[in-house]
Amino acid sequence: MNFPSKLLENAVNEVSQLPGIGKRTALRLVLHLLRQPADQTAGLTTALLGLRNDIKYCKNCHTISDRELCEICENPSRDNSIICVVEDIRDVMALENTQLFKGHYHVLGGKISPIDGVAPSQLNIVTLINKVKEGKVKEIIFALSSTMEGDTTNFYIYKQIKDFDIITSTIARGIAIGDELEYADEITLGRSLIHRVPFENSLKML
Amino acid sequence: MNFPSKLLENAVNEVSQLPGIGKRTALRLVLHLLRQPADQTAGLTTALLGLRNDIKYCKNCHTISDRELCEICENPSRDNSIICVVEDIRDVMALENTQLFKGHYHVLGGKISPIDGVAPSQLNIVTLINKVKEGKVKEIIFALSSTMEGDTTNFYIYKQIKDFDIITSTIARGIAIGDELEYADEITLGRSLIHRVPFENSLKML
Repeated sequence: MNFPSKLLENAVNEVSQLPGIGKRTALRLVLHLLRQPADQTAGLTTALLGLRNDIKYCKNCHTISDRELCEICENPSRDNSIICVVEDIRDVMALENTQLFKGHYHVLGGKISPIDGVAPSQLNIVTLINKVKEGKVKEIIFALSSTMEGDTTNFYIYKQIKDFDIITSTIARGIAIGDELEYADEITLGRSLIHRVPFENSLKML
Repeated sequence: MNFPSKLLENAVNEVSQLPGIGKRTALRLVLHLLRQPADQTAGLTTALLGLRNDIKYCKNCHTISDRELCEICENPSRDNSIICVVEDIRDVMALENTQLFKGHYHVLGGKISPIDGVAPSQLNIVTLINKVKEGKVKEIIFALSSTMEGDTTNFYIYKQIKDFDIITSTIARGIAIGDELEYADEITLGRSLIHRVPFENSLKML
């Protein structure tokens, strides 16, 4: 792309560094900002800088927070003996939307992935093991994505906590609500058969 | 979406105001920036603010430029008697990439669109008419999108300049290079038949 303006080229280059945004999309976004009042660009940049510079991570569960402790860890009505292990804050938000979990979370900050160069030491795993060692944890629920990396991470942590007197579980794998059986892959279908639930229980979940 | 952090919510709301970016994508982009060094966010915001505050529009052709006159209008080897009328700077960049046009451009800044509330007075039409009135223009080439709005804009301008002694033309509509005939719509196919070119000419264009 030949740009008629260095300012434009610079802005497009910066925006196109965001994941999933190519040069063409970046140009479209940047030209949109030029057509809007300058307030919008100012608001956008102030919000991004504010987030990047002032954001905190909860010292207990490592989720994104405006304070030292997040709202969930601060809430005395939540059960800190049940810990749901997730990859990032999006998973916390998704699980909170179900309104079914009343324990604490532990945000790993990623998954173990040799291909992407993510080693266990880069994740918040040590603090999770320490919580288990302190003896206050009764149950660990693994809620990572059902991928090779997710399973590897689950297993890596499981090996280190399996000798402690706690329950470990993972969220159920199975046919998603609304899915057609014929389009499900055989591994999912197989697991959903092996981990079948009593019919009365399935009624309760609805 | 329930956000655990006001800073995060604010950033997501600002980013999701960009066209084609929903809340989920905005969250993904913002979390990406948090994982990158703070330099990247600083670079992005500086580039956007620089563009928004310091950008100029060429006083001759209204394209985006770093100076009073754009590189094309400043270039003495370009023919200012042939003017190619386009919607925005992306069209200028696309046409420049062909390296086939050696005249000047005139950037309208949009298309007449009653549905989107874009009236002729909001576009750079008066300055184009004035150029024609000054008598230096020999040819006007309309290079707007082949849509209802593009055709309306073409016709609106054409009515005002048709009595002057100039050539007016529009870029050819037809089957794009590489397209299968059977998938072309009948209007395009019909136009490409009516405006057929001598075979020798078509060889020259390759």
